[in-house]
Amino acid sequence: GYGRFGLNYNSDAVFNESQIDMRMRINIDGSVETDSGITFGGRIRLQYDENTVSDNDSDGLVSNDRAGAQLSPAMLYATGFGVRVEVGNANTAYDSVALMYNSEIGYLDRGFGDPNGNYFSFNSTPYGSEEINRMGLFVSYSAGGFNGRISLVDPDQTGAVIDEEELSLSVDYAFGQATVAAAYVDNAAGVENAQALFLGAEYAISDAANIGLLYFDYDEDLDANDSVRVTLYGNYTMDAITFKGYVATDDQDGLANDTAYGLGVDYDLGGARLSGDIHRSYAEETIAGLGVRFDF
Amino acid sequence: GYGRFGLNYNSDAVFNESQIDMRMRINIDGSVETDSGITFGGRIRLQYDENTVSDNDSDGLVSNDRAGAQLSPAMLYATGFGVRVEVGNANTAYDSVALMYNSEIGYLDRGFGDPNGNYFSFNSTPYGSEEINRMGLFVSYSAGGFNGRISLVDPDQTGAVIDEEELSLSVDYAFGQATVAAAYVDNAAGVENAQALFLGAEYAISDAANIGLLYFDYDEDLDANDSVRVTLYGNYTMDAITFKGYVATDDQDGLANDTAYGLGVDYDLGGARLSGDIHRSYAEETIAGLGVRFDF
Amino acid sequence: GYGRFGLNYNSDAVFNESQIDMRMRINIDGSVETDSGITFGGRIRLQYDENTVSDNDSDGLVSNDRAGAQLSPAMLYATGFGVRVEVGNANTAYDSVALMYNSEIGYLDRGFGDPNGNYFSFNSTPYGSEEINRMGLFVSYSAGGFNGRISLVDPDQTGAVIDEEELSLSVDYAFGQATVAAAYVDNAAGVENAQALFLGAEYAISDAANIGLLYFDYDEDLDANDSVRVTLYGNYTMDAITFKGYVATDDQDGLANDTAYGLGVDYDLGGARLSGDIHRSYAEETIAGLGVRFDF
Repeated sequence: GYGRFGLNYNSDAVFNESQIDMRMRINIDGSVETDSGITFGGRIRLQYDENTVSDNDSDGLVSNDRAGAQLSPAMLYATGFGVRVEVGNANTAYDSVALMYNSEIGYLDRGFGDPNGNYFSFNSTPYGSEEINRMGLFVSYSAGGFNGRISLVDPDQTGAVIDEEELSLSVDYAFGQATVAAAYVDNAAGVENAQALFLGAEYAISDAANIGLLYFDYDEDLDANDSVRVTLYGNYTMDAITFKGYVATDDQDGLANDTAYGLGVDYDLGGARLSGDIHRSYAEETIAGLGVRFDF
Repeated sequence: GYGRFGLNYNSDAVFNESQIDMRMRINIDGSVETDSGITFGGRIRLQYDENTVSDNDSDGLVSNDRAGAQLSPAMLYATGFGVRVEVGNANTAYDSVALMYNSEIGYLDRGFGDPNGNYFSFNSTPYGSEEINRMGLFVSYSAGGFNGRISLVDPDQTGAVIDEEELSLSVDYAFGQATVAAAYVDNAAGVENAQALFLGAEYAISDAANIGLLYFDYDEDLDANDSVRVTLYGNYTMDAITFKGYVATDDQDGLANDTAYGLGVDYDLGGARLSGDIHRSYAEETIAGLGVRFDF
Repeated sequence: GYGRFGLNYNSDAVFNESQIDMRMRINIDGSVETDSGITFGGRIRLQYDENTVSDNDSDGLVSNDRAGAQLSPAMLYATGFGVRVEVGNANTAYDSVALMYNSEIGYLDRGFGDPNGNYFSFNSTPYGSEEINRMGLFVSYSAGGFNGRISLVDPDQTGAVIDEEELSLSVDYAFGQATVAAAYVDNAAGVENAQALFLGAEYAISDAANIGLLYFDYDEDLDANDSVRVTLYGNYTMDAITFKGYVATDDQDGLANDTAYGLGVDYDLGGARLSGDIHRSYAEETIAGLGVRFDF
């Protein structure tokens, strides 16, 4: 698991512009390796984020709402010989592809060059009311620098609710100093005809410097949500300090500005990192953060 | 804990006949051994089952309901010198007796030769609204092949709600190739005058084969729920494969058929098992499953 | 964590005078030590108490309420060189001061010489509806026998709800056979102008005997809640047996009696303790308990 905490600033916040942001995540895992070489296991995630209602009732008021750490649904898996199968609260092919989140910066690992649109992924908190009977399947295969994945998520496997199954596919390949990746998702997040395509490439200029280019195309029946986003990012490491930056463009209707960008600095504490980040959003907000992230 | 997942088929399902079934169970234990030789400890269970609402509100609608892993109430215990005392979310004498569940088959460990009626047991999920203030006590004594148990569960120890305390007793004894067991419960599951009696015997014909006979008599004021169930079961192991089967009869009013039966096959994966099961229920449904079960 | 269970008696209980009382507490911790000598970590607490609703809805009825173990919000910390910083569900300076709870007796660690008034502390269960967006900060410094602490808790850091931040300070110092402590809290528990002051001293008469005196002054705008409480306590150990006692006076309006007292006996089981306690409350109730407490 990991922990992170720090200060977060948003120039356009309705109430306090500066707040403390924190998360603690603990993965509760169990597994057994069989004589046949196949490992079976499972995971339930325990997570707390600040300012989050964990136990909400139906009245739309805050009365009796409560806030504590939350438990995810479980994911079970079998793995061996380069193949991994996941069932339940499974990862998805689209969300698991390489490079997709590499433009993120700061102790919150965020940025406006992230994927657009909605799609399923491992759910860190309980399923919401529309997905109580959700069931996911995921299969991946790895060999050398190659990874391929396919996943299917049925938001309601009982069939009582009419809905669409999300299907996604992804591949990535690392060779020498380069990594390339592609992913596709249909009926994204269970929305009929919602589709997203991702293409990405990263190149290691040297041991200390990387540069990458990401392309996201999200398309659904409701045109107002359509967007093509292109993200260029890079990072450079000098001793304990890593500089990071990105610039992203998005053609979605209604954005105040079709360009967003951000700069970040990480300082390696030898087992943790101190990170600062500052962004200009599509809504022309200034967003900044300074905090610590540690893994245990 | 353990994990299990697989396909489940029910010929008479209202919606999807085939669904994926899964559970992940983790027992969170803590204990300390004192200088006096007595060990004190406790357990809280963390469990996720698919298609389960974990956080339900009071409006009878699915709005705001959520589904994640759930935490049980705690059980505390003291054990030493053959005696074990449990307090809180305690096991019960009736539910803990030997043989009672030995006719179960498949990765879901199920069958129609299981005990009839309702009775208390360790609760894997939070207590329901009728049992918020439930308190159980359990004492067992073991010596050689003998086990004796007594338990008491008060569904509301505050006394604010009028209810009945469940009392249960059980004994079992293993000698040579035979095991015999008997159990009795009064005010079963807190229902006044609900009583259940269990008698069972199992015999190991050889290292590879077992046969057993179970008798369950459940009786309460509402005669429609009364039933006498008799279960005959057996299993036979050849190398990594174990064949299992049972046939059960139940005289409860209103059953479409008073006989149910099932066949199962386990394949030992050396730390996990692949299991298939097929049943014909009292309601003349065909129920089948194929999946994996692993313990960690 | 720890477990405790036993019998509890209250002469004035509305329903059952005698009930079984139990708690299981497990601290789920994670931490990492960095090369710089600073340790980063976090804690989420898992706890079950009997007779507690864990999942309550908004209808004011027990329908659909449930009771299981509960998860706290998370606390994250950084510690090194005698300094400790906590964020989130942080401890507070007032609650963490030495001596404050030293008059407690019995397996439930309770007594009527405990602090008066309300104030924030590490929350073992989810925040309630008034504190969903609560955020705490805590800094302590230790050197030799000295400890100093300061904490700030904002019941709603989003600023959407008008409320007061609780500020508290505390110091304690152990030298030779004596320990002295002082603590102060303003806007206690987020109540404007609610203030509490604590002064305490303890003296070890010998290896086997201690005596202490505590002074608590709680003051808020609503005078009916004001109280000055003074507690005198002592304990004496003979082999495995420790005798404990306290007498406390409280000048709050409306108390049936301004004096309360209690006697307790602990028997050391070598890794656990068997404890009995009996009290006379300010309401002239007789309260008694007998049970076991063990840490793991």
